[in-house]
Order: sequence, then structure tokens, then C-alpha cells
Amino acid sequence: MNKNQFGNAVVGQSGGPTSAINATLAGVIKGAFESDKIEKIYGMRNGIEGFLEERLADLTEQFGDAAGNLDTEKLDMLVHTPAAALGSCRRKLPDPHTETAFYENLIELFKKYNIRYFFYIGGNDSMDTVAKISEYLKTCDYEMYAIGVPKTIDNDLTATDHTPGFGSAAKFIATTMQEIVRDCAVYTVPAVTIVEIMGRDAGWLTASAALADRIAGCGPDYVYLPEVPFSIENFFADIRAAMKKKPNIVIAVSEGIRFADGRYVGEGTQSGSVDAFGHKYLGGTGAALEMAVKEEFGCKVRSVELNLPQRCAAHCASLTDLEESVSTGLTAVNKAVSGISGSMISIVRAEGAEYSVSFEAKSLSDIANKVRSVPRHYINESGNDVTAECIDYILPLIQGEPVLQYKNGLPVHFVIR
Amino acid sequence: MNKNQFGNAVVGQSGGPTSAINATLAGVIKGAFESDKIEKIYGMRNGIEGFLEERLADLTEQFGDAAGNLDTEKLDMLVHTPAAALGSCRRKLPDPHTETAFYENLIELFKKYNIRYFFYIGGNDSMDTVAKISEYLKTCDYEMYAIGVPKTIDNDLTATDHTPGFGSAAKFIATTMQEIVRDCAVYTVPAVTIVEIMGRDAGWLTASAALADRIAGCGPDYVYLPEVPFSIENFFADIRAAMKKKPNIVIAVSEGIRFADGRYVGEGTQSGSVDAFGHKYLGGTGAALEMAVKEEFGCKVRSVELNLPQRCAAHCASLTDLEESVSTGLTAVNKAVSGISGSMISIVRAEGAEYSVSFEAKSLSDIANKVRSVPRHYINESGNDVTAECIDYILPLIQGEPVLQYKNGLPVHFVIR
Repeated sequence: MNKNQFGNAVVGQSGGPTSAINATLAGVIKGAFESDKIEKIYGMRNGIEGFLEERLADLTEQFGDAAGNLDTEKLDMLVHTPAAALGSCRRKLPDPHTETAFYENLIELFKKYNIRYFFYIGGNDSMDTVAKISEYLKTCDYEMYAIGVPKTIDNDLTATDHTPGFGSAAKFIATTMQEIVRDCAVYTVPAVTIVEIMGRDAGWLTASAALADRIAGCGPDYVYLPEVPFSIENFFADIRAAMKKKPNIVIAVSEGIRFADGRYVGEGTQSGSVDAFGHKYLGGTGAALEMAVKEEFGCKVRSVELNLPQRCAAHCASLTDLEESVSTGLTAVNKAVSGISGSMISIVRAEGAEYSVSFEAKSLSDIANKVRSVPRHYINESGNDVTAECIDYILPLIQGEPVLQYKNGLPVHFVIR
Repeated sequence: MNKNQFGNAVVGQSGGPTSAINATLAGVIKGAFESDKIEKIYGMRNGIEGFLEERLADLTEQFGDAAGNLDTEKLDMLVHTPAAALGSCRRKLPDPHTETAFYENLIELFKKYNIRYFFYIGGNDSMDTVAKISEYLKTCDYEMYAIGVPKTIDNDLTATDHTPGFGSAAKFIATTMQEIVRDCAVYTVPAVTIVEIMGRDAGWLTASAALADRIAGCGPDYVYLPEVPFSIENFFADIRAAMKKKPNIVIAVSEGIRFADGRYVGEGTQSGSVDAFGHKYLGGTGAALEMAVKEEFGCKVRSVELNLPQRCAAHCASLTDLEESVSTGLTAVNKAVSGISGSMISIVRAEGAEYSVSFEAKSLSDIANKVRSVPRHYINESGNDVTAECIDYILPLIQGEPVLQYKNGLPVHFVIR
């Protein structure tokens, strides 16, 4: 074992925040405290961007108690705090083969803080960052172990069964869908409610809206994912069929649904409109469909965009997701100190009826810049609902409710100084 | 005591649903089971509209166990179910002085089911319904006791300290604001996020967004209520001032904010725009401000409409609100069987630092068709925030978290057959 392996660690968060990204951070911090190879763990403020400016938080100090041991109460608070507690960034690193000056500077900074372990929590772009740094490390004599830790509510990373953050978003969406459907059912007048759900390219989040129907018998009448070309004629026919059975129709649509010619359904809404101040209005998919249905059916129509709460409603997180997120972060540290580098931690689901997972390190080259869509057999033939197989896949991920700490009526979050 | 006082009761729900309106219904059901003057309690399906069509649910049967006692487990499930479990309607009753045929028919129906106690849960219009029926009862020889039970997330009813339903909506808004502000704080690029909150005429819900700042130090930078005329110049100046301190600005606006000339800020957004299907788009207040800020500042701007979850997010209800809602319903029954009629149950807050309330019957004439706005001294001088007095008023109403029953990862609701 190389003596250099004893040193400091640094962890960063990157890309869009989720309800569970701090649980992953908590796992990394826990792993660092437990490892005898890591002296100190730093947090990068605003990801790699902040690291380059040497904006670092001393997490060993902030999460240590008087005796220098991990303060588990603080760590637990962090687990339940939404959005990246270290701040985030969207910075694409240059090519390590040609832009060597950039990486030389980076290595100097690693040396300055004696960073021997590098953890980066994020989505596709973040895995690209880890891959590039790992690539450069091969060409220089600085010994450091770099591991990517996945997160994204979109669940669109390859080489992992699912991504930390998705389960909590799915649970919030299913919970909210059940509530919205109950709300919309109180009147007897015909009405259509269109709920727009995040997911530009992959329909995983929209698919999870269907859980409300399968679990509670109170969910959307139809779900439309971006994986299937959208036809307005079929959409109208679906609504017409549903209206024969009951007055209140609720529909879940992905923000990313597209016509057969590739145009986004929400695209056209982005021009022509002028508001009170004379400005153009940029609408979305739900808004576009709201207008279309209003004109076709002449009934009451409403669109609801679930928006930011999908990725930050930590008060409605999935316990399974939070626990797996912590484990993913913890595994990253364990793998790194055992000498693994240039990998991403992947969640592997065991075969069989009982849900169980393990955490493995996988090559980054399998992952970076690829998108995992909802497979066609997870969507029904008509393209307006998901199949039982899809439900079976998502269901275990939303199980369990975390016990939150409240103060004065609001959840308590942990703020990293 | 008149022998006629022994008989059946009927309860209905009317107007927009809330997260707590079923808790009030649960209180009425509990009161009916406990009273020796009430034999059977019926539920009107879709309020008075369904009653006229004799669409009734036998709640004594549905909430009774094998021995005919109240099944408290079912009742508890109902307390945590959002939206009107009996269905709702928006039906304004005719003038009882002139349209006597309508009321004669109504009385015949009461007689048919031997209804001696009439409970109607709702907002302003529902209190109007109770007032009219009470008025007509004075002119005929049918003995029945009619009580209105308030609910509205808007908190705009007079003659009550606050309305059941408001506390849960306020808690959801404050909880979500804290989460959104954390989410928006992760990047360093200048960005403005505008959160549109319900409340066409009264700003109580928007005011509660400020709780996130006062309780958790993580709330909107400004809140704009409909009680103060909106100035786009002052709004821009406010944003400019905030941007000098930090890059991420989050603003809470009421959907009902108006310019000094009375025009709604969201009004103009409702014309001119055409979407992918060639239809006009109807935008809102948040959308209008999003465009205005984008043009003025050229930075990233986003608008988020909290929309339906404000009134149906039962998974994030206030325990205080639910308990008070049950008590309001229970009090309604106790007052009615003691001979009170033509009244609304009011929540009275005791003087003093310690929060405590009592429930009283108040004359409906004080209430119907009046709106209670946020008083000017609850809003700061600049009209862009609320005062400490306003926070002190709302804070007790969001306290406590209900223990929900979950099944398969989703909250369990009670469905009335």
C-alpha cells in the first residue's frame, strides 16, 4: 500500500439538485469519518468551479463533535435537507488530452490540500468530470482516487438499476397525483386537468404518476411519455373515451412529449403571445395541451405544472431512496480507499420477487453521456399508460417515509457554512 | 324539548376543497354518533345539488362498526383524506322570500328523510345557503336546526379568527417555499424565481410564504399581497436591491395582485398568444412577471405556480388545523342539538401569548358575502413583506404534523361509497 493513500478527501455536488443529493453527501462524509485512510474531508463550494477558486468547506470540522467523532444528529439533518448543501455548478471540463494546463493547475490544487480522494455527486455531466480527471491522472504521477456518485431525479443514467433521487421524486409525484385526482373529482361538471411532469427525454417521472392509480386506485386516467410520439388525434380520442365514463379527467404528461416529426408539443407556445407589459410569453407542454383541449371540448380545462417541488420536496422523500443514497456515498468512499478509481457507484438490483440491492463500482466509460429511456415494453400498446412491469420496477423505490425533525412547524434542514 | 328534535341529520360539503374539509366532516360524523338526539347521519353527494336529487350516503352505516359504534380507525382515515369526500358543488340558492316553491320542495325532502339537523361545510357561498334555508325555516312549521361550518384555504371569512383549511395550506406553502429557496440557492448565476400563490382577493396564503424566512431563515426575499397596489417600478427596484446582496432572488406573489388602476397583473397575459395548435394561451400573474423581469434584467427567470397542491396536499397538513377542523364540526353538532340554528361555528382565539381557541356559534348575517383581507398593519410600509404581527398571527396555525397511515408508499385515504 502506497503511503500517499493516507491523505485528505474532497467531495462536490454538481448539476440539478434533488431531495436526496445531500443524503449521498452524508454517506460520503460518514465514510470519510470511518476510514483510517482519510484525515480530513473538504466540501467544494459550487462543485469543481468553487474548488478551482479554493472555496472549500471543512466538513470534518463541521460534522465533528467536540471529540472529533461524527455528530450523527447533524448528519441525519443533512440527510433530510433538499438541494445541494454545498452548492452546485454546471461546468464542463476541457479535454484532458489537449488542455493540459487546466489539469496541471487542478493537480496543483489537489497537492496543496493533499487531496487523495475525490468524490463527485451528480448526473451525466458530473460523471464526465470524473472521467476526465481520472483520464488525466493516468498521465501524471499524482496518486489520487476519483469516484463518481450518481444522482438525478430523471433516472436516466445507464449502468445502474436506478439513480438516487429518483425514488423521492417518484414518491412526491405519486402522492401529489393522488391528491390532485381527489381534488378534481369533487365536482360533477366535465373538466380536464393536465399535469405536466419533469423529464425532457426520459419518461420515468411521468411513469411514476401511474403509481397513484395502481396503489390507491386514484391516479391519472392517462400518462404520456416522451418515448412514444404524441398524436393529438389519439389524445382527443382518449379523453373522449374517458369522458363517457366520468366527468373528471386527469392526465399526466411529460414536459418532453414530441410529435412524430420531432417537434416538442410545448414548442409552439413559445412565440406570439404578449402580456400586460408587452412581453412574449413562454408556455409549456401543459399549457399547450390545455388550450388544445379547451378548443376541442369546450369544457373546463386546467394545467398544473409540478415544477421545482418534484426535485426538492424533501418533506415527502422516499426512505428507501434516502437510505440507498447514503449507501451509495458510503460505498464510494469504501471503494476509493480500497484503491478503485475512475468508477461510478452503481445500484444493482437482485433478481427475484423480493427487492434488494447491492452497490458496485462500474467503469465510467459505460455511463458518461448516455441516456436510459423507459423501455417500450414498460409502456402499453396505445402509448397512453404504463405496464404492470413498469409499476413493479418503480414501486420498491418509493417505499418508506423518513422521520423528519420539525421546529416551529417546518422541517429542520442542515446548512453547511 | 320538542319531540321532533329527535331525528336524522344531513351534512354536505360545498365550494373548493381543502386538505382539512374532511376533518370537519369527521367532526360532524363524530358528533352525530355521540348525540342521543341524532339517529342517523346522511351525507349529501355534491352538496345541496345532490341532496335535491336525493343522492345520499348513509354515513351511520359507513362509519359504524358491527355493533353500530363509531369506527374510529375509519374516521381517522377520513381526517387525513384531502378534497371533499362527499363531493362538492357551486350552487347558489334562490331568494327564500320569493322562490318559495324551491324551498317547499326542499322541506318535503327534509321531511321524507326526517332531517332535523342540517350541516353545511363551506365558504362564503355555503354560509349563504345555510342563511337562506334558515330564513325560510322561520316562515314554515318544519322544525330543523341548520348550522354552517366554515372552511376555506383563503382565510377570508369574517367573524372567525381564522378558517379551517387555512393552516394546512399555509404549512404546505411555507414548507415548499423553504425547499424552493434552498433549491434556487445552489447556483451562483443570477436568477429570479417567482412563486405564484393562490388568493384572488386576500393575501393570507401569500403572507404565509414569509414563515419560511422567519422560522428557518430560508424564505422568499419579498412577498406581494393583493391588499397593496402593485407597482412594477418598485418591484424592479426591490429585485435590484436584493441582487446587490446575492445572486438568487425568490419572490412570492399572490395571483390577485393588481396595479393601482385595478387591472390584475396577470390579466394582460390572457390575450394575443398562440400555441402549437393555433390556440390562445391564458397565462397568469407569475408568467406575466416572469416575462417582465426577463426583459428588465436579462437574467435567468422562472415562475412556479403552486397551484392545486396548496389546497389538497394532505400529506403536509397542519395537525393544529386538522384538530381544529374536527372540533369545528363537532361543535356544530353540539350547538344544533342544543337548539341553535342559523349560525356559523366560529374559531375564537384567546388573548395572551399562549395560543388557545374556543368554538362559538355566531350569527350568519355577520358573515355571508363579506371578505376579510390582510389588514394593512400586517404588511410592511414598502408593501413587499409582512410584519412580525402577521407572522405571530399565522405561526400557531401551522404547528404539528399528523401521523399518516401509508400503504405501499402512499398515504391511505378514506373513500365514501
